Amino acid sequence: MRDIAVFSGSAHPDLAHEVCAHLGVPLSPTRVSRFANDCLEVQLQDNCRERDVFLIQPLVRPVQEHLVELLLMCDAARGASAGRITVVMPHYSYARSDKKDAPRISLGGRLVADLMVAAGASRVLAMTLHAPQVHGFFSVPVDHLHALHELAAHFRQYDLTRTTVVSPDLGNAKEAAAFARLIGAQVAAGAKQRFADDRVSISAVIGDVAGRDVIVLDDEIAKGSTVLELLERLRESGPRSIRVACTHGLFAGGALKRLGEQPDVLEIVCTNTVPVPEDEHTDKLRVLSIAPALAEAVRRIHNGESVSALFEEPRGA
Amino acid sequence: MRDIAVFSGSAHPDLAHEVCAHLGVPLSPTRVSRFANDCLEVQLQDNCRERDVFLIQPLVRPVQEHLVELLLMCDAARGASAGRITVVMPHYSYARSDKKDAPRISLGGRLVADLMVAAGASRVLAMTLHAPQVHGFFSVPVDHLHALHELAAHFRQYDLTRTTVVSPDLGNAKEAAAFARLIGAQVAAGAKQRFADDRVSISAVIGDVAGRDVIVLDDEIAKGSTVLELLERLRESGPRSIRVACTHGLFAGGALKRLGEQPDVLEIVCTNTVPVPEDEHTDKLRVLSIAPALAEAVRRIHNGESVSALFEEPRGA
Amino acid sequence: MRDIAVFSGSAHPDLAHEVCAHLGVPLSPTRVSRFANDCLEVQLQDNCRERDVFLIQPLVRPVQEHLVELLLMCDAARGASAGRITVVMPHYSYARSDKKDAPRISLGGRLVADLMVAAGASRVLAMTLHAPQVHGFFSVPVDHLHALHELAAHFRQYDLTRTTVVSPDLGNAKEAAAFARLIGAQVAAGAKQRFADDRVSISAVIGDVAGRDVIVLDDEIAKGSTVLELLERLRESGPRSIRVACTHGLFAGGALKRLGEQPDVLEIVCTNTVPVPEDEHTDKLRVLSIAPALAEAVRRIHNGESVSALFEEPRGA
Amino acid sequence: MRDIAVFSGSAHPDLAHEVCAHLGVPLSPTRVSRFANDCLEVQLQDNCRERDVFLIQPLVRPVQEHLVELLLMCDAARGASAGRITVVMPHYSYARSDKKDAPRISLGGRLVADLMVAAGASRVLAMTLHAPQVHGFFSVPVDHLHALHELAAHFRQYDLTRTTVVSPDLGNAKEAAAFARLIGAQVAAGAKQRFADDRVSISAVIGDVAGRDVIVLDDEIAKGSTVLELLERLRESGPRSIRVACTHGLFAGGALKRLGEQPDVLEIVCTNTVPVPEDEHTDKLRVLSIAPALAEAVRRIHNGESVSALFEEPRGA
Amino acid sequence: MRDIAVFSGSAHPDLAHEVCAHLGVPLSPTRVSRFANDCLEVQLQDNCRERDVFLIQPLVRPVQEHLVELLLMCDAARGASAGRITVVMPHYSYARSDKKDAPRISLGGRLVADLMVAAGASRVLAMTLHAPQVHGFFSVPVDHLHALHELAAHFRQYDLTRTTVVSPDLGNAKEAAAFARLIGAQVAAGAKQRFADDRVSISAVIGDVAGRDVIVLDDEIAKGSTVLELLERLRESGPRSIRVACTHGLFAGGALKRLGEQPDVLEIVCTNTVPVPEDEHTDKLRVLSIAPALAEAVRRIHNGESVSALFEEPRGA
Amino acid sequence: MRDIAVFSGSAHPDLAHEVCAHLGVPLSPTRVSRFANDCLEVQLQDNCRERDVFLIQPLVRPVQEHLVELLLMCDAARGASAGRITVVMPHYSYARSDKKDAPRISLGGRLVADLMVAAGASRVLAMTLHAPQVHGFFSVPVDHLHALHELAAHFRQYDLTRTTVVSPDLGNAKEAAAFARLIGAQVAAGAKQRFADDRVSISAVIGDVAGRDVIVLDDEIAKGSTVLELLERLRESGPRSIRVACTHGLFAGGALKRLGEQPDVLEIVCTNTVPVPEDEHTDKLRVLSIAPALAEAVRRIHNGESVSALFEEPRGA
Repeated sequence: MRDIAVFSGSAHPDLAHEVCAHLGVPLSPTRVSRFANDCLEVQLQDNCRERDVFLIQPLVRPVQEHLVELLLMCDAARGASAGRITVVMPHYSYARSDKKDAPRISLGGRLVADLMVAAGASRVLAMTLHAPQVHGFFSVPVDHLHALHELAAHFRQYDLTRTTVVSPDLGNAKEAAAFARLIGAQVAAGAKQRFADDRVSISAVIGDVAGRDVIVLDDEIAKGSTVLELLERLRESGPRSIRVACTHGLFAGGALKRLGEQPDVLEIVCTNTVPVPEDEHTDKLRVLSIAPALAEAVRRIHNGESVSALFEEPRGA
Repeated sequence: MRDIAVFSGSAHPDLAHEVCAHLGVPLSPTRVSRFANDCLEVQLQDNCRERDVFLIQPLVRPVQEHLVELLLMCDAARGASAGRITVVMPHYSYARSDKKDAPRISLGGRLVADLMVAAGASRVLAMTLHAPQVHGFFSVPVDHLHALHELAAHFRQYDLTRTTVVSPDLGNAKEAAAFARLIGAQVAAGAKQRFADDRVSISAVIGDVAGRDVIVLDDEIAKGSTVLELLERLRESGPRSIRVACTHGLFAGGALKRLGEQPDVLEIVCTNTVPVPEDEHTDKLRVLSIAPALAEAVRRIHNGESVSALFEEPRGA
Repeated sequence: MRDIAVFSGSAHPDLAHEVCAHLGVPLSPTRVSRFANDCLEVQLQDNCRERDVFLIQPLVRPVQEHLVELLLMCDAARGASAGRITVVMPHYSYARSDKKDAPRISLGGRLVADLMVAAGASRVLAMTLHAPQVHGFFSVPVDHLHALHELAAHFRQYDLTRTTVVSPDLGNAKEAAAFARLIGAQVAAGAKQRFADDRVSISAVIGDVAGRDVIVLDDEIAKGSTVLELLERLRESGPRSIRVACTHGLFAGGALKRLGEQPDVLEIVCTNTVPVPEDEHTDKLRVLSIAPALAEAVRRIHNGESVSALFEEPRGA
Repeated sequence: MRDIAVFSGSAHPDLAHEVCAHLGVPLSPTRVSRFANDCLEVQLQDNCRERDVFLIQPLVRPVQEHLVELLLMCDAARGASAGRITVVMPHYSYARSDKKDAPRISLGGRLVADLMVAAGASRVLAMTLHAPQVHGFFSVPVDHLHALHELAAHFRQYDLTRTTVVSPDLGNAKEAAAFARLIGAQVAAGAKQRFADDRVSISAVIGDVAGRDVIVLDDEIAKGSTVLELLERLRESGPRSIRVACTHGLFAGGALKRLGEQPDVLEIVCTNTVPVPEDEHTDKLRVLSIAPALAEAVRRIHNGESVSALFEEPRGA
Repeated sequence: MRDIAVFSGSAHPDLAHEVCAHLGVPLSPTRVSRFANDCLEVQLQDNCRERDVFLIQPLVRPVQEHLVELLLMCDAARGASAGRITVVMPHYSYARSDKKDAPRISLGGRLVADLMVAAGASRVLAMTLHAPQVHGFFSVPVDHLHALHELAAHFRQYDLTRTTVVSPDLGNAKEAAAFARLIGAQVAAGAKQRFADDRVSISAVIGDVAGRDVIVLDDEIAKGSTVLELLERLRESGPRSIRVACTHGLFAGGALKRLGEQPDVLEIVCTNTVPVPEDEHTDKLRVLSIAPALAEAVRRIHNGESVSALFEEPRGA
Repeated sequence: MRDIAVFSGSAHPDLAHEVCAHLGVPLSPTRVSRFANDCLEVQLQDNCRERDVFLIQPLVRPVQEHLVELLLMCDAARGASAGRITVVMPHYSYARSDKKDAPRISLGGRLVADLMVAAGASRVLAMTLHAPQVHGFFSVPVDHLHALHELAAHFRQYDLTRTTVVSPDLGNAKEAAAFARLIGAQVAAGAKQRFADDRVSISAVIGDVAGRDVIVLDDEIAKGSTVLELLERLRESGPRSIRVACTHGLFAGGALKRLGEQPDVLEIVCTNTVPVPEDEHTDKLRVLSIAPALAEAVRRIHNGESVSALFEEPRGA
């Protein structure tokens, strides 16, 4: 495989620049044009021929624009004789459309995976997919990273001797346990109970949180209602302090503001897989960069070194 | 093949309702949901099993939203065991991305055709593709209609004895000639000359237009600059009257207003392949419905009758 | 689609016979030969040409033999010009291989789905897949049934006024809640906590079980250790009675015997998706037949009627 | 990618030898056998394993023989574990079958592109495709060269101060304009008008040709009737001199003789994408070699250098 | 499946007409055009939409022309929305290219099978493939007929009490034995021994031929050298009479004349899978029609009736 | 292509170790787990990323277990981003399922080839396939070795001046002739005649065996009945000595014991493509290793050197 070439779509150019800085390679320019009829055209403005091409584009809002743009980038790279095309997708929002819980619905998580392959993607570099099964939706190899090391490095600045990591639901509990082990903390989890189709409530917190320094950890925070509900339950047990952390900080519909206004929430921590608009930042927000991790993964993929050795999900507790 | 089932995306529900009225079948409901993370989910709300499913969606503004929605509709229909899935796409905007005129650009016309197949489309019903070669971008059968009969029926209300049909460029001249023959008129064409990359001008009108009732005919009008330039050339020859007609009335960037303000343009005629926003309508605009033609094509496709017999492009002059 | 033709592999002929009896069609004979070199050959011994072919084969022990046999059946049907090939797979054991929780492991759930398509399967009829995401591993339509109605019908013979349905873990809690709603019962769940890679224990039961008639419900019981552990937790709360139920009764390694020996377990209920060897039956075992449900699904698939209308998973609480 | 290996089919071995001479690599021998039943068999007589294989074969008369031979060459290279297979196709005759202008006709341009991929081609190197959209018929990368630099180098031997490049129709006008810019000449074009299905005539020449040194430029000349008709129109304006040039000199049905007999045609210039039979050569014919250009493109493809940088179509005027 | 539609390429229109007469359906017209550049275009001149389309074309001399024509026919039928496309190929000449007996050679038997699928063929109806394994080269269903019943019917006009069927080599011996059983005769076979790469000779005849009425039976006769050599061996044993029979009478290079000139050969019998040119007919030649068999197979395929029931190869002796 | 990585399934680890010893590379460890539900999971325990991966697994008893295991290995290697996956399959048992000699049977030889490709195999290294046509069942490149050089080297220890190589049937005669030429011997063959569906007998031996040192050579010996029958025929002619040799020693159903008990059989020679259980070895058995040949082929495949140059099947006699 010849030289590496990294391109960014318009979803998150800051992250792409940062990854390239860590890699020590320039970010190759991409031109995205919009015609009078609203169609997009992409031009990759560096030689792709036989290159090991990486296309950085998280599927963030506006998702459909960024998705079609990404597909056009894949197509352009393929047509330009790229040697290999790796889609670097730090946030795969369509992963949440992962099951048929109603008749005749689309299964976006699988469809979008197939579309990327149809457009020319040879492989995918993803981070913290909503469910581990989503890995199996792809017919090309996926390197599946997580951000627990970045989160752990951040929290190690604090005294963690009385810390409990709390997962809002049992679905994410395995990740929370892994994280707890990384930082030498205990683990607890909220137990969601579903009372009606349109309302889910957290009925209990399993594990010890009274008098503890609590870190609420979820894979992503969108509207934030699950976390808010968990906070209510937690307060009933009297934790000593509360911090909130996640990998994907979507913060839709004013979620960041609402969480920030909780007086007992000391800190909201997320990574930069999703760009947070400048004007939504709050004093409590800390955005950790996963660019070094992505850059190291890209470097290893390019060099044929083991990626799992670095990012393998820690297990057990 | 069992019963027919027709669904509409959110691009042009009025047209879909009209097609169904002509077909005498109900329009089956489609639910499109947008999640907090901006992803779409489609539910087709009628039984699709072994049905002959038709999905009506022109790729109009916002194109990327409507494209992804259409792909999700295909996926939902396939997953719901549709017997056959026909995408009814009265306007295929990505058809204009049909050649590689710069290095390393995307070829949207081919890519989007492939995406539809990847999402489950069994066949396509299209109208007046920008170039006839675009037909060959699809790996599934395409029925390619045109709207010349509708346009001809409209213009036959006038005295056509001194009429000349004028194509803005030679690319569309074949269609103009066919139309002229349909209404017993003469034909002429503007000859574009390209002086620089970003500027095209019409240097001549080939054919007789002085003292004639002119119908300017193009396949689509987006920003309208080509037509406006042609009007300048036409005026030099002193036509008796000017009308403007096209199949796809995109009218981007105030084009409709600008054309309507030309005092010597008596009428602007288009079809409803593309929805014209209510507040952009002008007195001079006449929108012809291609719903009867689409309905008849759908009926014939469903019944296995010849479509070409009805819609075959008239030839010669 | 012409006539229906139903064949059975050697995994569960009793079930196939029962399905055919309910359908009112004969079970067409299948010949499976084993050559001196241990290779298998399948002959479908009825005309398949343009027929709507159904191949009944749960992937049960010996799984590899039954899988290859099924693939050969698909191949034979395809080569014999079957009009459509539906794999009826009441138990898809490989669904449990649904995630990459270690580097460089096989993803059997996705691979086997792809193999069936490569062998000619046009669609799949499955029951209670281990995770709902497994649906998305298939590139052909899947009808995904469940057995809650059969289980509910069985338990309605008892007084259910003080009943609580208990899911051994939160993963299956949604199904347990749906079942509880069907029979008008309460719901509870065990909360698994993972202390080490090779040992999972149930640390708590969320919900009210003291003095209640408990129905432990899981999707499948293999070695039964999770259920046994749950029983220990349950006993701490003093339930009034205990019954155990599941869809897939694999009962590996003497699980049936071990469960049957629990004095406070009144009944063990499963369905016949998996054949239980005659000599492992115990007095406490009740095997419910899902043959009527499968037969009705097959009938609807063949006739193009809605399957989801019948088997749609109940929701809510 | 390991070493390069170049093979030639029987369509144009002279060109292949010349390309190899420029590349400085030997032309590897190909054996084509014809059996008693008229079937062909190809043997590539050099190691292909992991090699970067180039197969040179323009689709020239007899087209079907050369096409099937080419497909067999692809198959042989694939079966012999070639690392990559590039079809070098200086003339793609089936590109003219690019639209469905009658019901139920074959679309050879797309079909043959698909056949090459089915036979194992990894990529294509083509020259001056009849329509730029044909590029989109291929599902593998295409490098699309043109011969304008070669033609320009030839004509620069003349005094070009009063030269006008004339395209026989508007379809080829963009290429003519590009060529005119290369040699600092003016541009003009014939405007075809279609009077009946079986007869096309050139009704006008747009642009200034009176007293000018005219170079008629077309992409290909088959029967030559379009050029002959253009000559009649040109003569009405009194050009000072006439030369005829094209990329693909098919010269079918005595076209070369007929053109050569025009007394005012000083020269007929084509390239060697198509072999001209020795006995059809006339004094007026000049055949320019595109072998250096093909060789340079092959070299760059092999080395992963930009091809578009060299051959990008010049734009504007 | 709607109505049947049968088209013929230009390889063997007489056979197609005869098949249609037996079917009682008209042969739909096909237009094959050859352009000035030697490319072919096919138009199927009857509605194909949802029809059960049969394309009759043996791959006979000129094979490449007929093959490409057939591929274009498939493409035209697919593009015209045929419901199903069955290639009726009474002689598949490329079946002889079935093994790699030299390095880096093409495997035409498999490649051409793949090309037909790439061009749109849904299934194939073949007759007496050179080796039974060639069936496995196709990824679509194949109905594989033989002509033994036609040959048997012919020979039953003679006294067969002292008849021995002789296969020229052991490869065809199974078919010869089946034929012998059909007509109640004995069987014998020549044993080829290979002395050098370019020369094969028949060293022995296994079985009793002295004083017998011999029928030499092969699957096809091309140059006829194997049969001529067998005749020499047979004469050493003194047979009472000799007749020669085959399914595919290719008769290349004057084979028919040479065989006819053998004074002791009473009769040469073949079928009309391959057209024998009018001027090569000899008095000794008898051509049997397989049109009734093809027609019956087509009828059964269309109606979904068992074809194997009719044409299953007889076994044993 | 980066470094080589060799893994073995559980079918024949001894052979894999031996191949690796000859290659001078370590055998990378493979973990095969069997879950409680009898499903398998494979983990390749060395980095595969961009590696040239070789998976050694003959399809030997229990065939279905080893086949599924191999498919899971392919899947694991693909998912782990292997650069290329070569299945090294010294014995392909399913090759015997190579024709449809009864209606509606599976065609295992083609199906299993397709399954391997579906699971991710890029190429196959096979040895002595039962019929040469089976090569054409694979849609990926196959390197097809034979073991004649190993067998020849063994027999050259004897005086071969009066040796005749005897093939049990004519199907294998070409290989026997090649072998005879290698060791300077004569060749003979048994002629099978089929008297009934379930019984084949050898009616004659063609060639000179009286007083000769006979080597019976077959591609594989399963139950051994063909060889035993041939021995009876041979004894009628009085050979001086008898040895039995084959490539694939399956020795099913006590074949080895039965052959060993023949007093006039001096030696039974096979290769180690198939593992012979320790307790079935007899004094007369000699197992030759094809590990050096496999290792050399693997080395050449990895280095891109010609494999056919080494293993090309010798021809002629």
